[in-house]
Amino acid sequence: MAVLTRINGPRDLDRLSQQQLVELAAEIRTFLVDAVSKTGGHLGPNLGVVELTIALHRTFHSPADRILFDTGHQAYVHKLLTGRKDFAKLKSKGGLSGYPSRAESEHDVIENSHASTVLGWADGLAKANEVLGRTDHVVAVIGDGALTGGMAWEALNNIAAAQDRPLIIVVNDNERSYAPTIGGLADHLATLRTTDGYERFLSRTKDLLERTPLIGQPLYETLHGAKKGLKDFIAPQGMFEDLGLKYVGPIDGHDVEALESALQRAKRFGGPVIVHCITEKGRGYRPAEQDEADRFHGIGPIHPDTGLPIATGGADWTSVFGDEMVALGKEREDIVAITAAMLQPVGLDKFAKAFPDRVYDVGIAEQHAATSAAGLATGGLHPVFAVYATFLNRAFDQVLMDVALHRCGVTFVLDRAGVTGSDGASHNGMWDMSILQVVPGLRIAAPRDADQVRAQLREAVAVEDAPTVVRYSKGAVGPAVAAVGRIGGMDVLREPSEGERPDVLLVSVGALAPMCLEIAALLDAQGITTTVVDPRWVKPVDEALPGLAAKHRVVVTVEDNGRVGGVGSAIAQALRDAEVDVPLRDFGIPQRFLDHGSRKDVMADIGLTAPAIARQVTGLVATIDGRFAEDADHASEIARD
Amino acid sequence: MAVLTRINGPRDLDRLSQQQLVELAAEIRTFLVDAVSKTGGHLGPNLGVVELTIALHRTFHSPADRILFDTGHQAYVHKLLTGRKDFAKLKSKGGLSGYPSRAESEHDVIENSHASTVLGWADGLAKANEVLGRTDHVVAVIGDGALTGGMAWEALNNIAAAQDRPLIIVVNDNERSYAPTIGGLADHLATLRTTDGYERFLSRTKDLLERTPLIGQPLYETLHGAKKGLKDFIAPQGMFEDLGLKYVGPIDGHDVEALESALQRAKRFGGPVIVHCITEKGRGYRPAEQDEADRFHGIGPIHPDTGLPIATGGADWTSVFGDEMVALGKEREDIVAITAAMLQPVGLDKFAKAFPDRVYDVGIAEQHAATSAAGLATGGLHPVFAVYATFLNRAFDQVLMDVALHRCGVTFVLDRAGVTGSDGASHNGMWDMSILQVVPGLRIAAPRDADQVRAQLREAVAVEDAPTVVRYSKGAVGPAVAAVGRIGGMDVLREPSEGERPDVLLVSVGALAPMCLEIAALLDAQGITTTVVDPRWVKPVDEALPGLAAKHRVVVTVEDNGRVGGVGSAIAQALRDAEVDVPLRDFGIPQRFLDHGSRKDVMADIGLTAPAIARQVTGLVATIDGRFAEDADHASEIARD
Repeated sequence: MAVLTRINGPRDLDRLSQQQLVELAAEIRTFLVDAVSKTGGHLGPNLGVVELTIALHRTFHSPADRILFDTGHQAYVHKLLTGRKDFAKLKSKGGLSGYPSRAESEHDVIENSHASTVLGWADGLAKANEVLGRTDHVVAVIGDGALTGGMAWEALNNIAAAQDRPLIIVVNDNERSYAPTIGGLADHLATLRTTDGYERFLSRTKDLLERTPLIGQPLYETLHGAKKGLKDFIAPQGMFEDLGLKYVGPIDGHDVEALESALQRAKRFGGPVIVHCITEKGRGYRPAEQDEADRFHGIGPIHPDTGLPIATGGADWTSVFGDEMVALGKEREDIVAITAAMLQPVGLDKFAKAFPDRVYDVGIAEQHAATSAAGLATGGLHPVFAVYATFLNRAFDQVLMDVALHRCGVTFVLDRAGVTGSDGASHNGMWDMSILQVVPGLRIAAPRDADQVRAQLREAVAVEDAPTVVRYSKGAVGPAVAAVGRIGGMDVLREPSEGERPDVLLVSVGALAPMCLEIAALLDAQGITTTVVDPRWVKPVDEALPGLAAKHRVVVTVEDNGRVGGVGSAIAQALRDAEVDVPLRDFGIPQRFLDHGSRKDVMADIGLTAPAIARQVTGLVATIDGRFAEDADHASEIARD
Repeated sequence: MAVLTRINGPRDLDRLSQQQLVELAAEIRTFLVDAVSKTGGHLGPNLGVVELTIALHRTFHSPADRILFDTGHQAYVHKLLTGRKDFAKLKSKGGLSGYPSRAESEHDVIENSHASTVLGWADGLAKANEVLGRTDHVVAVIGDGALTGGMAWEALNNIAAAQDRPLIIVVNDNERSYAPTIGGLADHLATLRTTDGYERFLSRTKDLLERTPLIGQPLYETLHGAKKGLKDFIAPQGMFEDLGLKYVGPIDGHDVEALESALQRAKRFGGPVIVHCITEKGRGYRPAEQDEADRFHGIGPIHPDTGLPIATGGADWTSVFGDEMVALGKEREDIVAITAAMLQPVGLDKFAKAFPDRVYDVGIAEQHAATSAAGLATGGLHPVFAVYATFLNRAFDQVLMDVALHRCGVTFVLDRAGVTGSDGASHNGMWDMSILQVVPGLRIAAPRDADQVRAQLREAVAVEDAPTVVRYSKGAVGPAVAAVGRIGGMDVLREPSEGERPDVLLVSVGALAPMCLEIAALLDAQGITTTVVDPRWVKPVDEALPGLAAKHRVVVTVEDNGRVGGVGSAIAQALRDAEVDVPLRDFGIPQRFLDHGSRKDVMADIGLTAPAIARQVTGLVATIDGRFAEDADHASEIARD
């Protein structure tokens, strides 16, 4: 690490020779594989942008010039070059964030992990520069995958409209987001890649391979470009120039000198310009380069030599869903699946293999996923759109106005719902059970275990005249939690041990069932009797709930979702509407952006643990006892009058 | 109306001669001007698509073939041709909807009034046809303005990816949405218009003008194409073909024969194809053709000859905002304004005239409006994005993840919030105060009158480290409602007439203040004492509210927003958190899609009137009295034990 050791800020790059830059790139790759194999994190994307990030920081002067990354998981190299080298607790509590973080560095701007935003940010920053008469540069780095998102188009259209407002767009084209990038744009980019410049890139790459000490020697034949097969014609730069964007490229994204030359040209241009760089995701790390499924996009801890995971957990929520989809696909020919560029991460890979004509990867395009689902349903099919919970926010309007207003039978499967933790604020799936509450007719299932995932998915796809949602957590699914009874549509998980009017009705949502049973046990030890129910479908509120609530002295709800407007609020409203004025307390995620950390650490920090909740409920019951005694005193005074 | 009278369904068009079609077009224009000048409605867009709609219904066989309209306000001609000719109660209760409506006709598919959705629907329907082996056609009609929306791009990218899946996209290019369409795409479309075909269109148009009895004879010079000025070079069809979409055009959108010929070609093609039609908004109606400001996009009742409005009301919410923005713009050079293709409708036209370099029309691109606003704020400016409340749903993720997560000082001004009524389900602004509740740090102001709009807008733009929202109703602003006191940040609008512990705390939100005062008067007549407060800022809940609530026997909230997760729910949660368990009842819009009708009719239907609410509150107070008596009995029993 002879070169990297001397880099404590971007300006330290200025005095390095080309040879030293090549050494630096190799050192960074070694560092990344070593560090990320221990902690887990986004490996593939960062291995692909080593030279690009070096060239960016040599050409532009951050932080005055703004270097912006779309989906900041590709910002590890940027972190290293801006003085952040302690990756030991990457994504853990107290360690570096897995994304840019303004708290970490003045060189960071966008913290958001949702894709396709960078061009909007860049347009705003460039406009501000113009209004304020500043000549600093704005540089946006965006992947080819992120260009499939509608926001990117909206921004391009605006950027192109101002021909004299400088803005540099670096397209980091590795032909994939998670999955290979799809659609007309991808084909157009492929055409651009087949120009002269790309041919030059291929021959240069061969040289480079011989010069660079890589971490796992790739065969020349397996290189990204070559392995995809090239069309042998020359195409114009077409689309971008039609829109009015100057185009420079394609550039070999692993040749610092070529990159700097292109970026310098772009910097001098004085208007909006696209620099099209061809990079290879996982570059220089053989297990990543040889992996077609892109398992190295984001990883847990791995053996650095083999790339194999160190720990393999039990069944996870995703695979339970994925397997059941295959079963459903066999039973019902009208079931089709949709993914927004995340076929494997959401567990649809098996379905895609079994039914290749019934799966649609729409790109990073959640809006289109939802609206095309409305079309599919209106056309007679039942689409299942599987997506990370936090990303469904992108399609809120489409869920409401296209799917729900038109009463379409579309099932949304929300993976990574609730606290996910390590990816930080924008990855937590803490919004869905609140904002979806307002959608008329929509039904939400929160399965508590694997059996319920299977059962409720089946119930969901049976609904043909309304949208349904099935939401579950990230990671390993817990053991089965048996029901001991049923009231209305709700599973009773625990009946109170004694007494005709139990103290507490505890409403458990989804994966928190084991925690709720633990709370009940702790309350029981305090002499507080508790009924625990799992409503299974949390929207609409079960009709039997108000009546059941009226039989208890206090209602407590516990959910892995933002407290504001969530299941607790919906139940409270249902009780008000039924004129059941039993006191209610709602526990959930506090309504703020959460720092990164493990799920366990975050849950402890926000007080979503059995002991913390049991303690508060105990206090509440005592208060109500006191209040009741006061009322009794007051009433007996009246009675005496 | 000799020809129109004989048209009761699309197949009746088949036997008409070209001359009869020209007569039919003229009759339809006469019908539209006559009908819409009485009821109000979308006049300009429908005058522009008369020939196009005729050609579509002659070429395709609805409903087996799906003819889909983007933003269905351009579907009046479609309604006429599918047997719906009673426009007397257009947009009123019991009358025709201003948009397609599946309840009205099997020929209608998409009811949603939000733009840019049609290509997503079309992609889904085309995929369903493919899976089910159907050979019916899917035809999507989309304006050039709607193509600036990100959803359209996401869909185009998907449509282009399947070269053998038939889908016909008709681009209805009138160079504007409300305002002239902007951006790189608009420039590209302009280039396409300058091809050979367009020159032919211009000469044909001249002929047509001489043949057709138009409703107000336009001068040839004022024609859309000519008045914009043509570049004199021939361009390739570039962008669309780069994406892999076959392009046909440009076609004269007022020549039925040319349109049918192009549509027939597209129908035979067997893959995705774009038919680029040039139309003129307001075609054949002189006041519309001569109006640069596009006042005839959507109108109230007008004098048909002059196009002048019949009634001019007092000041409306929009203009109060618009005037104050000009004042603010003079005081603060860092204030910039953003609109999503609705400069005039949201009241930013005066600001744009005063500060042309500080206003951004981003196209129909709410996502970009929000994210570029985050960039503008980060760059040192204070952006104000004015938008109809219902359209902000499109930018929910961007408000949350770009603006709020980054603590940007951006002000969102939501016009047409609450029940708007006549434009139907998808235009009501009944979602914002619910979904925005979950956004950490965001503050929401609901001004009750013109003074408060001005005051709260000023308070909003003074916040530099968090997003702020100012939301108000559609139409005329009511008289000023004076405060009689202040508690915390809340205005007291009425103090109870007597008693040390008043019965009801009535929390009034925004424009409903007069209604709430009326409720209080009605309650007073029943001997129920009432405090009325206006929190002004409804998020966060005022810290003084729980303490004030505790001094009353019941809390009642009234808001012009969906009940679920709205201000009432937020206040209920704040009371729970403060352990104030006073019974609360929340009144608002029931959480369902509302049929169209006047605001007054809709408000009556959903029970948002003073008498209806007063009646329920009276009942509630009686119940609580009864319950209290029971408790007293029970307590006195205990006391006697």
